Amino acid sequence: MIIKSDIKRLLQYRLCLAKFKRKGFSRIYSYNLGNEAGVSPEQVRKDFSMHGITGNKKAGYEIDDLLDLLNSLFGMDVIHNVVLVGMGNIGRALANYNKQFIGQNVYITAAFDNDSRKHSKKSGVPVYSMDKLSATIKEFNIFTALITVPGVAAQDVCDQLLENGIRGILNFAPVILKVPDYVVINNINLSIEIEAIIYYLSQQSVEE
Amino acid sequence: MIIKSDIKRLLQYRLCLAKFKRKGFSRIYSYNLGNEAGVSPEQVRKDFSMHGITGNKKAGYEIDDLLDLLNSLFGMDVIHNVVLVGMGNIGRALANYNKQFIGQNVYITAAFDNDSRKHSKKSGVPVYSMDKLSATIKEFNIFTALITVPGVAAQDVCDQLLENGIRGILNFAPVILKVPDYVVINNINLSIEIEAIIYYLSQQSVEE
Repeated sequence: MIIKSDIKRLLQYRLCLAKFKRKGFSRIYSYNLGNEAGVSPEQVRKDFSMHGITGNKKAGYEIDDLLDLLNSLFGMDVIHNVVLVGMGNIGRALANYNKQFIGQNVYITAAFDNDSRKHSKKSGVPVYSMDKLSATIKEFNIFTALITVPGVAAQDVCDQLLENGIRGILNFAPVILKVPDYVVINNINLSIEIEAIIYYLSQQSVEE
Repeated sequence: MIIKSDIKRLLQYRLCLAKFKRKGFSRIYSYNLGNEAGVSPEQVRKDFSMHGITGNKKAGYEIDDLLDLLNSLFGMDVIHNVVLVGMGNIGRALANYNKQFIGQNVYITAAFDNDSRKHSKKSGVPVYSMDKLSATIKEFNIFTALITVPGVAAQDVCDQLLENGIRGILNFAPVILKVPDYVVINNINLSIEIEAIIYYLSQQSVEE
């Protein structure tokens, strides 16, 4: 199962709404929210109405109401524990984000790496050997994992995670993981993200 | 301007096709390609036909033809130089990817950081002070930049990049950058990527 972009947009709106609220606003129009999130006002209204949220053409949306609805939709009242496999640069970057994730209800409970020099209980996120993976997932009742190992190791790590009950994976390894349909998978391939930008720039040059 | 998902899918198909080719295949059906890329065969056919690529219902697609068309569409015959600002963990991860990018026609020419301890000409990607940004962008005729600085610094870095002619940005800072319409922007917010997975898992639990 692949993540659809409307869900990511709703999560983005939530961050933008929180920002507007911090700035002292109490109501908002689809135009303002779209402008902040980088999408059209029509897209904002469509995404909201798809999830049963309607505004008032003249008065816009009440920010607190929207935030309550989105927080409820995304289960923001519960802390979701996740595990991370692979303490390379991307793994460390994610582990450093833990403080930020806390505010957003995601918490990296533990990280795993097969290099014993990286094992540590002192740092913000404890790093264990792969032996401890199974017990940790069970102990903390974890369903989501972040894979930040090299491409060659990713499928093996993925298989181990699924055997231990993981059902959602954020994958940074530049390979397509084979998973059963029930698994929610979100692939971030950094080269594709850059190449897509270059494509649009080259199209602009052609048009000029 | 925001990246559309069909462009990312086509780039993904390209990687999958290269993989099939390495395995010795010469023809492919939308079913095989969709299965590998994690999308439906209908989506594959739709994405291809949107870009003028048609297959044969019985015989499928010729892999070499598809690769030629996609390589031409994405300008894969030219090396695209990019710059990177911010040598934290994500910056270092991207810099380490440089070898992999080379094969895919993207090359990080230089990185910049305002911490002088990070400056180096020895490592794979040279790291300079921000003073050198303007001259480097001009010297290598660069239009694309990767922003991997903390959120508080991102808009300032973005403004400096645009002043120096950058028109495409991959942004990892967890803020929405304000840019003119002509700028192609691709935001990767890691907390949103994780929260989207958790949302789908929670929906599965409700259905069960």
